[in-house]
Amino acid sequence: FVCQAYASQASALITKPSLQPYLFIYLFFKVGSCSKMTPSKRSPVLVDGVVLNGPQTDVKAGEKFVEEACRLIMEEVVLKATDINEKVCEWQPPEQLRQLLDLEMRDTGEPHDQLLRLCRDVIRFSVKTNHPRFFNQLYAGLDYYSLVARFLTEALNPSTYTYEVSPVFLLAEEEVLKKMMECVGWKEGDGIFNPGGSVSNMYAMNLARYKYCPDIKEKGLSGLPRLILFTSTECHYSMKKAASFLGIGTENVRFVETDGRGKMIPEELEKQIQQAKQEGTAPFLVCATSGTTVLGAFDPLDEIADICERHGLWLHVDASWGGSALVSRKHRRLLRGIHRADSVAWNPHKMLMAGIQCCALLVRDNSDLLKKCYSAKASYLFQQDKFYDVSYDTGDKSIQCSRRPDAFKFWMTWKALGTLGLEERVNRALALSRYLVEEIKKREGFKLLMEPEYANICFWYIPPSLREMEEGPEFWEKLSLVAPAIKERMMKKGSLMLSYQPHRGKVNFFRQVVISPQVSREDMDFLLDEIDNLGRDM
Amino acid sequence: FVCQAYASQASALITKPSLQPYLFIYLFFKVGSCSKMTPSKRSPVLVDGVVLNGPQTDVKAGEKFVEEACRLIMEEVVLKATDINEKVCEWQPPEQLRQLLDLEMRDTGEPHDQLLRLCRDVIRFSVKTNHPRFFNQLYAGLDYYSLVARFLTEALNPSTYTYEVSPVFLLAEEEVLKKMMECVGWKEGDGIFNPGGSVSNMYAMNLARYKYCPDIKEKGLSGLPRLILFTSTECHYSMKKAASFLGIGTENVRFVETDGRGKMIPEELEKQIQQAKQEGTAPFLVCATSGTTVLGAFDPLDEIADICERHGLWLHVDASWGGSALVSRKHRRLLRGIHRADSVAWNPHKMLMAGIQCCALLVRDNSDLLKKCYSAKASYLFQQDKFYDVSYDTGDKSIQCSRRPDAFKFWMTWKALGTLGLEERVNRALALSRYLVEEIKKREGFKLLMEPEYANICFWYIPPSLREMEEGPEFWEKLSLVAPAIKERMMKKGSLMLSYQPHRGKVNFFRQVVISPQVSREDMDFLLDEIDNLGRDM
Repeated sequence: FVCQAYASQASALITKPSLQPYLFIYLFFKVGSCSKMTPSKRSPVLVDGVVLNGPQTDVKAGEKFVEEACRLIMEEVVLKATDINEKVCEWQPPEQLRQLLDLEMRDTGEPHDQLLRLCRDVIRFSVKTNHPRFFNQLYAGLDYYSLVARFLTEALNPSTYTYEVSPVFLLAEEEVLKKMMECVGWKEGDGIFNPGGSVSNMYAMNLARYKYCPDIKEKGLSGLPRLILFTSTECHYSMKKAASFLGIGTENVRFVETDGRGKMIPEELEKQIQQAKQEGTAPFLVCATSGTTVLGAFDPLDEIADICERHGLWLHVDASWGGSALVSRKHRRLLRGIHRADSVAWNPHKMLMAGIQCCALLVRDNSDLLKKCYSAKASYLFQQDKFYDVSYDTGDKSIQCSRRPDAFKFWMTWKALGTLGLEERVNRALALSRYLVEEIKKREGFKLLMEPEYANICFWYIPPSLREMEEGPEFWEKLSLVAPAIKERMMKKGSLMLSYQPHRGKVNFFRQVVISPQVSREDMDFLLDEIDNLGRDM
Repeated sequence: FVCQAYASQASALITKPSLQPYLFIYLFFKVGSCSKMTPSKRSPVLVDGVVLNGPQTDVKAGEKFVEEACRLIMEEVVLKATDINEKVCEWQPPEQLRQLLDLEMRDTGEPHDQLLRLCRDVIRFSVKTNHPRFFNQLYAGLDYYSLVARFLTEALNPSTYTYEVSPVFLLAEEEVLKKMMECVGWKEGDGIFNPGGSVSNMYAMNLARYKYCPDIKEKGLSGLPRLILFTSTECHYSMKKAASFLGIGTENVRFVETDGRGKMIPEELEKQIQQAKQEGTAPFLVCATSGTTVLGAFDPLDEIADICERHGLWLHVDASWGGSALVSRKHRRLLRGIHRADSVAWNPHKMLMAGIQCCALLVRDNSDLLKKCYSAKASYLFQQDKFYDVSYDTGDKSIQCSRRPDAFKFWMTWKALGTLGLEERVNRALALSRYLVEEIKKREGFKLLMEPEYANICFWYIPPSLREMEEGPEFWEKLSLVAPAIKERMMKKGSLMLSYQPHRGKVNFFRQVVISPQVSREDMDFLLDEIDNLGRDM
């Protein structure tokens, strides 16, 4: 250990050119004084001015740093995550936050105590998405099991392309996919975990296109008729991103009208398909949504599947958000007909709290379509003369090369809770949503946008000054300013976070999302009380 | 706390329908016995058979589980990572491993001690990619700083779409991108971290296409002339994946011949562009590679940039692997001319050990091209009436919606080591590579494929039985069996891992990759000794 330190000191000297002539003498002297070294190790090996003997890093100091940081993370994040007396966020505008944090990376490094202080600051000014009163997105809460799995995989740092590098994680992925497909109602099929619901939708769009015309993989779209896909007006914005990225073009996404609850109207879909065919274009795909982003609406899958069958169209279901209802015997009826889909996107990192990112694309086909569509057969990675069954090298089914073991964290949660425990979580989140809806109906100044089907509760808060006003243009204009103003106040106070948005002609309203089992009805009451507190003077 | 436990017991009872009639009595009795409760909290709120009072999870037990698991991870992964007496892997074929691990997810969950045993098994049978003798991929080693940052972000679970949810991590990303652009030699520009080098290449291809013809975003490729891109025969396989995914088609990727060291021949590029133009197709992009996957070759960027300028083509440099040389004043000459690129892919998770995934796409344009090309303006996420400067909501530049804070872990390492520390790592890895090359030249039975430019050392091991044989077809056929056989033996022994592959007419050879500062010249000696040990009887 002492010799290593000398070597690294020497290495530091080497970077100063003026000292180089003296280097060998220095090394000889210092190394010579290490009594425990074997003769063969006495002479340091130098290449390009770098000492190559022994490892370069101070392992003990590194390990101690990790230990101390883990303690900090445990105390400041994990133990405080469930404490409602903590703030959800400590708001600072960008320019001020830049001043408060020492973000600049310099030529020389910082000592460990300074790095730990930085970690503390990072935690302090970060939003506590684990907090029981973080309702801002379609994910929330702290799942201890998934968290442990994530710590484990970060420490092991695997990449799930080949069985040889990632044996356990590939088997776990296979197991998780199998269970998820069971939930969908398939006896067999295929699937892949990937970096997000948006990417899942891209995968599906490309698969459907490949199935429609395999030649596109080699020849591209140039010279082909326009490919057309259908989705509802309430679909996720990734549909447009995907169509543009895949060279299909956003104009070739046909948006099908929805009913008052945000569900695709099957008759409208039928009309649009007919029309596209009359135009001489090439319809190839329908994307239904199970759990829309804003309203939490579920498209009628059975009726849509009938239409897809009739027209020979691929049915993809974007169940990124709503898929989790499949684990609940009570609520899975929301996705009735999903077994008829050709592909399903489902993100356990949302309602099932697996941690971002944890997203599966499931494919009903069992003729190895994913592989046919995506493989590029890299000979440096997917050697065919390996000594084990290379069908376990599933990386060639992916658009990625390196790929994170995202299935594993969901596997751990599933192991810990069992299917019944997952079901209980979903049931509880939806029961809490029901409770909130009933409370909103009871309270003065709160107005529900619509009866929700799922965990998205959309509502307006109408401040006292607007309560007597007629619901005309002036009312809506004034109301549109309320949610952003209350949001600003709650962020600055740090008491809770929920999102707001305008949506299809409706002015800014709050969207409350219930997920975490650490949330209770007391938090629902607090939410409504607090909005009222913050907006009462408006 | 006691009341919570009763509530959860009651909740368990509810799942048994036969017990439901008795439930209210049970709750009344039990809750009544909690003397500390305030009157308003005495009555449990039940919706759909679910008790909504108080949080559902046993927080203390969960926290204890995380603490115990952290200890296990520290002992079994972090502390053992640098120990060369540990195995790199404990090989089990898929079917046996499935027997050894209890992977099945059941209806009911497992207790904590069983989960900890599972974690231990997962670690045991996982490949130790942190091990000093893991040389199998283009990543390796353990960086304590990046690891801490990863633990931190996993605990905080942010998503980097908006400043409101991810203030610190978006500022850190901005800072890291700025420094990376400085390394490339740009004064300004833009960029985004994304899930992999393959995805970076897709981003770049789509950006180049958008620049070439912005209408494609809306109208798609249908009816357009064939878009053509050029890359070398040594490029990463993601180029083909990208061309197929983006609807361009793999046939429209023109592969430019390389010289003996694997570098693109500029004259060949020029010829191919001329030819494509004569064919009436639409060339739009040249993808050069800085650090090819197998040979570690660097395309001559300056010459290629000249050609791109002359023809008005976008120049993308895939420096996923080689980009890290930019932090070294000694080795950055490998990428001379990179400042002239329009976009650069660079993965700090490779040579700079940031942990998978950590991948940036950098873009020279400063007219907000990323945003123009990718934005879908989701009104539920990127509200324009927020109370802060929404230019910090960078999520709409991405093809993803949820996005991991991948820049942050690299930021932490950079803070800890400084630019000089990063430089030292790269210099040392390349010095070790030089050392290995010289040793290979000295040793009998080892034959270098070519003089490497970077950290990929490609070589054959020629076992004694082949050493006297003439280098004819029989020799090469027999030699092609050697590397797979040695690989099998090393995996089963667990003593080291390095990859082999056939490549463009060359039969199976080893590719040794040096990255980690925990590796020393003793490991290089061991590598050659061990291969000789394992193959001496062949």
